[in-house]
Amino acid sequence: MRKMIIASTSSVYGSDYLAYLLPEISLLFKDADTVLFIPYARPSGISYDEYTRIVKNAFAKISKKVIGIHQFDNQKEALENAKAIFTGGGNTFELVNQLYKNDILALLKKVLENGTPYLGTSAGGNICGVSMMTTNDMPIVYPPSFYTLGCLPFNINAHFIDPLPNSTHMGETRETRIKEFHVFNDTPVLGLREGSWLRVIGNVIKLEGNFTAKWFQPTRIPIEIESGSEFDS
Amino acid sequence: MRKMIIASTSSVYGSDYLAYLLPEISLLFKDADTVLFIPYARPSGISYDEYTRIVKNAFAKISKKVIGIHQFDNQKEALENAKAIFTGGGNTFELVNQLYKNDILALLKKVLENGTPYLGTSAGGNICGVSMMTTNDMPIVYPPSFYTLGCLPFNINAHFIDPLPNSTHMGETRETRIKEFHVFNDTPVLGLREGSWLRVIGNVIKLEGNFTAKWFQPTRIPIEIESGSEFDS
Repeated sequence: MRKMIIASTSSVYGSDYLAYLLPEISLLFKDADTVLFIPYARPSGISYDEYTRIVKNAFAKISKKVIGIHQFDNQKEALENAKAIFTGGGNTFELVNQLYKNDILALLKKVLENGTPYLGTSAGGNICGVSMMTTNDMPIVYPPSFYTLGCLPFNINAHFIDPLPNSTHMGETRETRIKEFHVFNDTPVLGLREGSWLRVIGNVIKLEGNFTAKWFQPTRIPIEIESGSEFDS
Repeated sequence: MRKMIIASTSSVYGSDYLAYLLPEISLLFKDADTVLFIPYARPSGISYDEYTRIVKNAFAKISKKVIGIHQFDNQKEALENAKAIFTGGGNTFELVNQLYKNDILALLKKVLENGTPYLGTSAGGNICGVSMMTTNDMPIVYPPSFYTLGCLPFNINAHFIDPLPNSTHMGETRETRIKEFHVFNDTPVLGLREGSWLRVIGNVIKLEGNFTAKWFQPTRIPIEIESGSEFDS
């Protein structure tokens, strides 16, 4: 049975890395001493080792060890043996690129479907959707495909943000971008605000956190979903 | 000899479509009665015909006719015969996708190098760089490649914007995204603010408009370039 937390962001403003989620992560990863960390999104381009150190420091607060998947000669074995998996944020293009290059995307999906507890924040949450086509990230590398895990029957837009009032900037709003996505694609999109997350238990997907989320479907007016609402998968 | 205007945005805040550039466009396109318009970026997903209508209205003010490239059975002939070419903004992924699908990217580069006057705004300016890897757009379609015209020896970041003071949003700033690009790529990037544009005449590339532009190179601190500065190509 699937057990996942898919969060819009690793950190909320003014708070330490992962701090707002640690009580939830403690429960999700309660049967694991060690967390397998996937550092491939490399926020700000930091190295795998640097990124893993940041994650180690955060998980030390809930007495969990952390090992980066890049430290294993056999990444497939590492995934199969993991008792808990965390994919952190950064650049979704590079994350997806490395998942394909290391040929671990399909296996990651399999172990998640089989019940290995999973935490994904930002880019690590984006990859749980049907595709990465609703990422906000810059296409700094060319991955072999935009298709991702498909653990959710919809796409995530992480760090969802409403238009800024009184903005004079002419770049597209987030909502405009998602509407453009729906000209070419049918997959619904959930705009997850920072501080919101999804809890997936088996086939039940529940919106958690203090905010509503914005639900986009092709040719329909987007609607706000209340925290506590459930989606079927 | 190349004659191009590459603008950060089609419209500045509070002003009609292309209005701020019309005096420049009049000069650039002075020998053309008719402008060939490439509508493939489809802002907000509007149709090619709708987009072409908007552009027709703007160019009517300087007494130019407009024909959309989608109206031609033979797009290559249309490019070769064009006296002036304009590519408008929208989604860079879909624009590049269509340039590849219609097999006109290489020919577009050729006619521009041979001197057909060209205007590119936003996505239509992005494609003048080495690659589209510094677009801000959402990857709503998967193009066959991220490589673009390479008329400039660097990449463009259109609608460049400085971090908002006092923002509590945890998504990456534009500068952070461009720095991530430079972890994986050596191509310099010019962050063009809205209201700035490049004038390309032969091998001289000059920054125009009322603002400085931000110049990013790998492993160097970004610098502000004054309006009026020239780049060699």
